[in-house]
Amino acid sequence: MIVGKVVGSVWATRKEERLKGMKLLIVQHYNVDMTPIEDYHICVDLVDAGLGDLVLVTRGSSARQTTQTDKKPVDAIIVGVIDRIDLKK
Amino acid sequence: MIVGKVVGSVWATRKEERLKGMKLLIVQHYNVDMTPIEDYHICVDLVDAGLGDLVLVTRGSSARQTTQTDKKPVDAIIVGVIDRIDLKK
Amino acid sequence: MIVGKVVGSVWATRKEERLKGMKLLIVQHYNVDMTPIEDYHICVDLVDAGLGDLVLVTRGSSARQTTQTDKKPVDAIIVGVIDRIDLKK
Amino acid sequence: MIVGKVVGSVWATRKEERLKGMKLLIVQHYNVDMTPIEDYHICVDLVDAGLGDLVLVTRGSSARQTTQTDKKPVDAIIVGVIDRIDLKK
Amino acid sequence: MIVGKVVGSVWATRKEERLKGMKLLIVQHYNVDMTPIEDYHICVDLVDAGLGDLVLVTRGSSARQTTQTDKKPVDAIIVGVIDRIDLKK
Repeated sequence: MIVGKVVGSVWATRKEERLKGMKLLIVQHYNVDMTPIEDYHICVDLVDAGLGDLVLVTRGSSARQTTQTDKKPVDAIIVGVIDRIDLKK
Repeated sequence: MIVGKVVGSVWATRKEERLKGMKLLIVQHYNVDMTPIEDYHICVDLVDAGLGDLVLVTRGSSARQTTQTDKKPVDAIIVGVIDRIDLKK
Repeated sequence: MIVGKVVGSVWATRKEERLKGMKLLIVQHYNVDMTPIEDYHICVDLVDAGLGDLVLVTRGSSARQTTQTDKKPVDAIIVGVIDRIDLKK
Repeated sequence: MIVGKVVGSVWATRKEERLKGMKLLIVQHYNVDMTPIEDYHICVDLVDAGLGDLVLVTRGSSARQTTQTDKKPVDAIIVGVIDRIDLKK
Repeated sequence: MIVGKVVGSVWATRKEERLKGMKLLIVQHYNVDMTPIEDYHICVDLVDAGLGDLVLVTRGSSARQTTQTDKKPVDAIIVGVIDRIDLKK
């Protein structure tokens, strides 16, 4: 998984049938120093995350291992809202 | 998923049997500031996207989780045409 | 999928049982401007591509969604020979 | 797999049901010269790794091929604590 | 697949049960000009490769499509020892 910050949302009226009703958030990636980088993912939100939240993102086929995203064309999900990061490099 | 813009199309007469009849669009990736970068994917279009449209792209095995792409050698699909992006970095 | 150009081939006598008999081509990636970049993949050829051909490459688990590569340790295949690219950035 | 070093941990009270109880460690990647780079993964720890340990990380769908992570939304796990690296470039 | 060179090995006594007994080699990636780059993978060796060998590497879920790695937390394997590379860019 990676750490990112919710920086926005995306709206698409015309979309694939199985994505209907899903909240799509823009999550900007953080690097190991926990500072933002240019990368991001549009993620399906499973934990009711809000703008500005630091979140945990799961990508790839593992993003379908939840009841809400099973068999859906989803490749990135928010699986947690981060409370604390302990970093001792 | 990621955000990209439809910038063209690709034609291949000689192709793998299971790809026959699929519309293949060139989608240039956008970074988190929603400006275009050098990356792209050739995507199967599932939502009738047009040239210049901002679209949502799903990659990897999740690109096969639709009735049209199930069991097909497809690793990127357009799953939505974007109406609006709210970005507050 | 991505666009690339066939620039060579690779020969391996000692190889995993399930790869026996497969033609392995070196495909150099193209960026969105359709100019070559440093990346490449060694691809199993499914469409009888030749040296210098522009081809369409499928990667990851989707590369196993063909009768020839099903259940094989293959992560990149050539799925089409490109006739035409329309690009309007 | 790749080599990395455990440099911290992440805490998330609000998280996806199937991740409950899992220890999440920050693993900074090493390059081939075995020096740290900016990349990292938040990994589920399966081998009781500690801060400062050099570890082996498995990513993608293969990260679900253990009894603890089967059918879980996990895309990176620590599969070993490294005792020795022999490098002769 | 990609081309790389075996430059070392990794030893881990404490590791995930299903990885026991597997030989883990460090394979440094080559770019399309067949010169070494900084990337690498720790690979399970299936073809008895030796230090200095040029090898063919399969990554991702496809790395589990062999009898030795089926259902194992392995994301990179050596599938061939390369005899010859023909490159005509």
